[in-house]
Amino acid sequence: MNWNWPRIPRAIWRRRSAVNSAGLSPNLALNQLVEQRRAAGESLVHLAFGEARLPLLPQLAEQLAIGAARTSYGPVAGSPQVRAAVAGYFARRRLPTDPDQIVVAPGSKALLMAIQLAIPGDVVLPRPAWNTYLPQVNYAGKRAFGVPIPAEYGGVPNPEALRDTLVRARREGGTPRLLILTLPDNPTGTLAPPEVIRQLCVLARAEDLLIVSDEIYRDIVHDPAATPFLSPAELAPERTIVVSGLSKSLGLGGWRIGVARFPGGDLGDRLRNPVLAAASELWSGLAAPMQQVAAYAYAEPPEITERIVDAARLHGQVARAVHRIAVEAGARCRPPTAGFYVYPDLEPLRPRLAARGITGSASLAEALLGESGIVVLAGHLLGDDPGALRFKAATSLLYGDEQQQSAALAAADPVALPQIQANLAQIAHGLARLTDQRSIAAEAKTGVTQ
Amino acid sequence: MNWNWPRIPRAIWRRRSAVNSAGLSPNLALNQLVEQRRAAGESLVHLAFGEARLPLLPQLAEQLAIGAARTSYGPVAGSPQVRAAVAGYFARRRLPTDPDQIVVAPGSKALLMAIQLAIPGDVVLPRPAWNTYLPQVNYAGKRAFGVPIPAEYGGVPNPEALRDTLVRARREGGTPRLLILTLPDNPTGTLAPPEVIRQLCVLARAEDLLIVSDEIYRDIVHDPAATPFLSPAELAPERTIVVSGLSKSLGLGGWRIGVARFPGGDLGDRLRNPVLAAASELWSGLAAPMQQVAAYAYAEPPEITERIVDAARLHGQVARAVHRIAVEAGARCRPPTAGFYVYPDLEPLRPRLAARGITGSASLAEALLGESGIVVLAGHLLGDDPGALRFKAATSLLYGDEQQQSAALAAADPVALPQIQANLAQIAHGLARLTDQRSIAAEAKTGVTQ
Repeated sequence: MNWNWPRIPRAIWRRRSAVNSAGLSPNLALNQLVEQRRAAGESLVHLAFGEARLPLLPQLAEQLAIGAARTSYGPVAGSPQVRAAVAGYFARRRLPTDPDQIVVAPGSKALLMAIQLAIPGDVVLPRPAWNTYLPQVNYAGKRAFGVPIPAEYGGVPNPEALRDTLVRARREGGTPRLLILTLPDNPTGTLAPPEVIRQLCVLARAEDLLIVSDEIYRDIVHDPAATPFLSPAELAPERTIVVSGLSKSLGLGGWRIGVARFPGGDLGDRLRNPVLAAASELWSGLAAPMQQVAAYAYAEPPEITERIVDAARLHGQVARAVHRIAVEAGARCRPPTAGFYVYPDLEPLRPRLAARGITGSASLAEALLGESGIVVLAGHLLGDDPGALRFKAATSLLYGDEQQQSAALAAADPVALPQIQANLAQIAHGLARLTDQRSIAAEAKTGVTQ
Repeated sequence: MNWNWPRIPRAIWRRRSAVNSAGLSPNLALNQLVEQRRAAGESLVHLAFGEARLPLLPQLAEQLAIGAARTSYGPVAGSPQVRAAVAGYFARRRLPTDPDQIVVAPGSKALLMAIQLAIPGDVVLPRPAWNTYLPQVNYAGKRAFGVPIPAEYGGVPNPEALRDTLVRARREGGTPRLLILTLPDNPTGTLAPPEVIRQLCVLARAEDLLIVSDEIYRDIVHDPAATPFLSPAELAPERTIVVSGLSKSLGLGGWRIGVARFPGGDLGDRLRNPVLAAASELWSGLAAPMQQVAAYAYAEPPEITERIVDAARLHGQVARAVHRIAVEAGARCRPPTAGFYVYPDLEPLRPRLAARGITGSASLAEALLGESGIVVLAGHLLGDDPGALRFKAATSLLYGDEQQQSAALAAADPVALPQIQANLAQIAHGLARLTDQRSIAAEAKTGVTQ
């Protein structure tokens, strides 16, 4: 046994600070900030946190209580019951799955980290992307190579752009091997079309890339008939790991339930086994009572399916309303078709914003917070160009308190509900104010923001 | 923003295999093996897994059910309530603690990993030690330097040995900065005396080491009056991180509840903040319903304290019985004073074992399993010399089924209970059989093991 490993020069604590000088993952940091400022009496519109806050289904609480009886460590991958349920979930989505292909974990975040730690090679990331992929690349001692997303959708590059990035990465001494795709996408709230997935799978095979397909928003496509979903696992099953979880579709972020589906067969084992080894050293297993919950939810009884359908409809209606407001304010913005995000680009307003000293995503986010109490996630925190006037707005925290959330889920036109109307009005007002000539004049005169 | 990190050469997937060719953390792997073989009808004595399997306290189940209402992500460090409760737990142990010094997580394992990822420097580990420290060092891209434990206790080196190891590490180009101590120890079931902790704290200060004190077995000291506990956090508070959890003291391994206590003040923040940053990218937070459970348990209401006292007594009685059996079979073995482990050394039997081809910990563990259905964790899996005839025996799975566990908790003399007697007899028989001349003769004659 080689007790003393060869020395690996690393300085992640320095490099990390380049990701995020505040330290915490920026969405979680902003969420804590909002809670503190609200507790201090401020009225904020919180668009910086992708939590689907919806009333808890009583059946889920029941399952958790039943699961309390399970106090033992079980298999690292999860109990046979939960793995069979998750396998069934994928099988109903055109992905025949053996329970042995499934690993459950305390969140898909933990699984993504274990994948990065366990599987060799550098990482290609869409740019912008969810703010956790890049720090994880960093913790795993890998290099990240960003590939821009097209104008039509996010989470997935077009094949040309990917090819260019691979060439650049290799020229720079990188060994790109993992390609992370987000289907549907966070931050843009869009879904890449099947044709692009087809082309990417061909390219992934030619370039021997492993695809990590983050499909945690899969069940929140707003109009499934109009927005066909194709997983790379259908076309390149031998080289696709799918990760997902219950945080988004069932509003269970605080319960930390994530799942991964590995390729089948020997090839799959060669990926799954090192990830399981990492899991066994990082977290041991998903809490056993949560496995009980997951086994129930992934079996998709009618009340679960119904809630997910209702939630997807609600998320879609409100996301589209925010999209309209952004476009009316002069932004460019991809129309959202999934999840609960929009990603406006205020480039058309650059001259007027520049006159106010707003020249990039940081100053833009600051102005929205300072002037209008609107909290957004600045684009540069997602790996986007800091000079671009882009931000992510999560629209799922606009529904109000628990009673209002229930009303919104049940309403034919939730956007017309007073709580949501008020939030939308504050957003519209805040965006208008950014370029309002009177505000600018007043600011210039008094030196302070009204 | 520097998107492309400098390239870090790593090959953990290769180096990892040196830790454990099976991939999974060896205790978890053996646990899965036992479950499979038992399901196939084999009768095994399972001494390879450090789980305190005890009946669930109904109050804990109640708290989990109440906690179901919490579905939101909260602060990464944990809710103010749970942090206050954990701070109180430490304050009642001579460690005044501000709730801001506390971080809760899905297991102390996850916290140990985040500490390793977030804090620079190489790691000094007692040898042998719990089987997860070393793979984590490896995942963090650090180097591990082993320091032998004394003959009297484990989990902690004596200061001379530590000084030697630091010299060696630096000579080999290492930058030892983190010192992991296990108080009380897994695998030896012993507790280092206060005087040694005092000397180590002086040395840690002189050498500018950070102490990571794994105190997950702290509340399972068998006879607290006879075995005084001193935490390095009492003497070197500025440089000690304590990790703990509820898995061992309350038999809640499957619920995954871990806690860490960081130093106070600015110095503490400089350690805690990067660890929290890593936590935010690795797991987001402990599942909110589990935080409810932890807030309740760490407040230590009488029924919790009573259970922990009863369990510690039971663990002590059975561990001492296994110790006696090992010594009677001819082993050397540190008398256990905490936790539920013994770590016998069969060196005095080497000639007789060698005659049977048993020359190290791997062949020893194999013989115990093959001949007698006794599953132990071979010493080399804990970083010990593979040529040494040592193994770890966890004694906490000998109590039988849930009803038998309850009886054992209530019994004045649990060792006399039939289920425990039967298990102890099988262990005594298995150890005797290792060196039984008739067995050896029969084996030589027939070529097979009886």
